[in-house]
Amino acid sequence: MAEQERVWTAALVVIGDEILSGRTQDKNVAQLASWLNVQGIRLAEVRIVGDREDAIVKAVNTLRARNDYLFTTGGIGPTHDDITVDAIAAALGRGVVHHPQALAVLERYYETRGGMTDARARMARVPEGADLIENRVSGAPGIHVENIFIMAGVPHITAGMLDRLTGTLEGGRPVVSGTIGCWVAESEVADLLRATEKAHEGVSIGSYPFFRDGRTGANFVARSPDEAVVGTCLAALTAALEADGRVVVPGGI
Amino acid sequence: MAEQERVWTAALVVIGDEILSGRTQDKNVAQLASWLNVQGIRLAEVRIVGDREDAIVKAVNTLRARNDYLFTTGGIGPTHDDITVDAIAAALGRGVVHHPQALAVLERYYETRGGMTDARARMARVPEGADLIENRVSGAPGIHVENIFIMAGVPHITAGMLDRLTGTLEGGRPVVSGTIGCWVAESEVADLLRATEKAHEGVSIGSYPFFRDGRTGANFVARSPDEAVVGTCLAALTAALEADGRVVVPGGI
Repeated sequence: MAEQERVWTAALVVIGDEILSGRTQDKNVAQLASWLNVQGIRLAEVRIVGDREDAIVKAVNTLRARNDYLFTTGGIGPTHDDITVDAIAAALGRGVVHHPQALAVLERYYETRGGMTDARARMARVPEGADLIENRVSGAPGIHVENIFIMAGVPHITAGMLDRLTGTLEGGRPVVSGTIGCWVAESEVADLLRATEKAHEGVSIGSYPFFRDGRTGANFVARSPDEAVVGTCLAALTAALEADGRVVVPGGI
Repeated sequence: MAEQERVWTAALVVIGDEILSGRTQDKNVAQLASWLNVQGIRLAEVRIVGDREDAIVKAVNTLRARNDYLFTTGGIGPTHDDITVDAIAAALGRGVVHHPQALAVLERYYETRGGMTDARARMARVPEGADLIENRVSGAPGIHVENIFIMAGVPHITAGMLDRLTGTLEGGRPVVSGTIGCWVAESEVADLLRATEKAHEGVSIGSYPFFRDGRTGANFVARSPDEAVVGTCLAALTAALEADGRVVVPGGI
């Protein structure tokens, strides 16, 4: 009998008034989710909060306790609205210190960019005892403390930080997904989807309808850590749809 | 002395494994946030949860209690992974019924599209006592119950539902925002931003750095329900930046 597989989970707290005001379209949820999949870690929940210490503290403390990892994005720049480090330090009951290595990195980065200032030195502040996550794009590093990973708000900077973390976090088997597309209204095949999912243990099937070129279609995505079962499941679904006279597009539409 | 202005808030629960798996880029947060601004309602917090009843119930019950309005997006289609209605009914301690008007709408919509089925009738299920929100795009309506607005996951369907709700929700004065751009590293003007924000009561200034064409710049966004103060604040910031020899771009870069 197979041992029950341990599922590793992460949560994300997106920090920033600019997301809640609609000014900025978040891209870090999708980016982090995709990266976590490859590490064998499931993104279990996300909260988006404004630039307010109490909201950040509460979200961080709730989510870090019930997930293996907690990521945050946003609020680590040099300006007055960047309060993530202070809020997380408060959440952990730690002080805030200037990290000597971060200071050195910033000194070097700003040497040819107008020199160090107090505001720039702010970006070297970390919760006491924290490690740094290298940022090759813009100098100011990310921060790792306990099970928390503090990342930038700008997506391509966070991408670089995630790149540095690749392969360093313990996870389980990556979730594998496969997709088929079909020009069918999902409501016509709802029973078939339910039955197919039930017949393939450990697989979840998502149904994603769309309207394109005046036609109704849907993509069906099977997900499981077991690649073989994803294949079997999609093969069964394809056969059933084709037996019903539907045209199936492997890989999705 | 001016009476303390009442601030109206809303929360959003985004429901769907496809968002947490990274398969689908959410667009409803930004869309709802922008729409709420115009209604004079502030989007105060967002949670993204998977297709799991316990997670939905908990998020809905926490957020509906502490906000004037709660919106949800996703999980109201005809398939097995669409459990939003059941979860919200459970959260409210209400039963689930087929809404007669929703059934009629769906009968009419599917008359020329293969006819009604059990799966399609699922989309007429609502928490007992709920009202409908018209959906001109694809038939299946949104749902309004207590202070909860249950919307579609597909952004353009939700757009249509929001359009129906425009002007029907009580709110305060809309938050007005104004933007200026400047080719400057935000870290060079952090003190100026902080001082300018402090000097203009009720205004928040956000700083949004970017790297473009090899140059560093930032947009500064002032927000307040008081349009005049937004103008005064940005004029002061512009004057200070220009006095410092910076080029300011009205409207942002």
